[in-house]
Amino acid sequence: MATHKSKFSVTILGSNSALPANGRNPTSQLLNVNNHYYLIDCGEGTQLQLRKYGIKMQRIKAIFISHMHGDHYFGLVGLLNSLHLLGRTMPLSIYAPEALQEIVRLQLDASGGRLQYPIEFHVLNAPEKGAVEVYADAELQVRAFRLKHRITCFGFLFSEQTKDRVYLPEKGEKAGVKVEEIPSLKKGLDVKRDDGTVLRFVDFTADPNQPRTYAYCTDTLPLASTAEIVKGVECLYHEATFLESEAKRSKQTYHSTAKQAAEVALAAKVGKLLVGHYSARYTSLDQHLEECYPIFKNTELTIEGKEFEIN
Amino acid sequence: MATHKSKFSVTILGSNSALPANGRNPTSQLLNVNNHYYLIDCGEGTQLQLRKYGIKMQRIKAIFISHMHGDHYFGLVGLLNSLHLLGRTMPLSIYAPEALQEIVRLQLDASGGRLQYPIEFHVLNAPEKGAVEVYADAELQVRAFRLKHRITCFGFLFSEQTKDRVYLPEKGEKAGVKVEEIPSLKKGLDVKRDDGTVLRFVDFTADPNQPRTYAYCTDTLPLASTAEIVKGVECLYHEATFLESEAKRSKQTYHSTAKQAAEVALAAKVGKLLVGHYSARYTSLDQHLEECYPIFKNTELTIEGKEFEIN
Repeated sequence: MATHKSKFSVTILGSNSALPANGRNPTSQLLNVNNHYYLIDCGEGTQLQLRKYGIKMQRIKAIFISHMHGDHYFGLVGLLNSLHLLGRTMPLSIYAPEALQEIVRLQLDASGGRLQYPIEFHVLNAPEKGAVEVYADAELQVRAFRLKHRITCFGFLFSEQTKDRVYLPEKGEKAGVKVEEIPSLKKGLDVKRDDGTVLRFVDFTADPNQPRTYAYCTDTLPLASTAEIVKGVECLYHEATFLESEAKRSKQTYHSTAKQAAEVALAAKVGKLLVGHYSARYTSLDQHLEECYPIFKNTELTIEGKEFEIN
Repeated sequence: MATHKSKFSVTILGSNSALPANGRNPTSQLLNVNNHYYLIDCGEGTQLQLRKYGIKMQRIKAIFISHMHGDHYFGLVGLLNSLHLLGRTMPLSIYAPEALQEIVRLQLDASGGRLQYPIEFHVLNAPEKGAVEVYADAELQVRAFRLKHRITCFGFLFSEQTKDRVYLPEKGEKAGVKVEEIPSLKKGLDVKRDDGTVLRFVDFTADPNQPRTYAYCTDTLPLASTAEIVKGVECLYHEATFLESEAKRSKQTYHSTAKQAAEVALAAKVGKLLVGHYSARYTSLDQHLEECYPIFKNTELTIEGKEFEIN
């Protein structure tokens, strides 16, 4: 199997829960898939964070908003406005709960102007069980599924699109494979020449890379159904608002503890667990890791500005 | 005249125009009147700025929003939410254009919860000419007036409430003035005792301090009417989005240049001029000052975190 050459990473723009504190911002993450950018949630100050980390915001193709608590979307309309002022003309897709559309519209109307680029608003929905495709382009497929929070909240499963087989140029050159024959071989098709010769794709190509996957689960009770849906992903982000010492409060507020996040990661047999959405009460995050390690060793803390390569 | 002992200052939380850049945030200012706090505009990230500068946000009694361009209010609903999470129960007054009320309401509704403190929303209005009182408490009177921008925009004139005369304890003690007689003397009333003695207020009190005044004029063409309304204020904040080299663009976008801001300050004979609302194109602000100095010498740049004492 060939090694991955294209980028598949997630950069943390905000790691805190509702109340920004301790230098931590409300939630936002940037997914980079082969230099196509996708924004996941957009708490207040996200555009400032994008600037701070030198991320070209015009590259964002689509924005996914998990739910209608403000720490997950209060930065959206400011970002939309700045994209306009910076000269965007490329359409932008937004996938979000229905209520967001009117909220954005009212604010744009009140400013008395129009954005010079089109926004394509898509109302999120997902069945009670399982995940449903909500977005697909040449790079990425996104499926949404239900989490369990005080209000409707969606998780997202991001998967690279299935790639072509990997052409092996040394073998091809030796056999005189022509440039125009390569695309078919990469698609897994044998090529029959006019003279009757058959080029077998298995002789000139290797298996494609396994599509990489990232799952995003914020603001939720820990769920067995989540573990089913995200089974085997390379990287799982699962909220860990509280520590076990606050398990009661965590349940009351429909959140998860660090230990519970690790249990979901274990049950789902994921490659790596990222935790975040920390309560403002925690100035240090060491204990979050300590709670996860005995259950799921490959855990990391999300921290503002940190980029995680997913491989 | 006695010297001022109470606080009357303005702290800059954001000094930039629409696009946050060069480390400058969108507009917000905090007015401190004798440790009562009033917020003027509330661009995205204002709550983060309040935290950064160690300003106790629960002390804010009222918020004044000049107009419905996002760089002046996109931080409001996040701040309201944080005040709730931090346990506020004291009512909060908001003075703003009518459209803001529905925008705030929709966002609070969408979050599925209720704030645990009351918001008293007041729709701003002002006559075509002159200023009208929109707010008054024991410390402060606020008058609103019309500016001229692409959409309806209000300026604000903040004045300390007229204070009592200043009691002179040395003179009072010498003459045996009783504690219960002081309030009348401070109100400028002579006290007639039962034995016929008259205590004359002029003998035991000095003139009160002149009420201090601060005027706030953002997002506007330079106007002769503004100079009339803010005549003689101790401190005038006037936007200076552009330099004269961009005078054409400034006019097209209904903004002012630094030179024009200085001309308003000169015409109004104010004590001090603060300029701000800088376009993102300016990385350095030296030229803004250079344009103002020949016309109005006592000019300062608004800079994030800087507190201006008004005396």
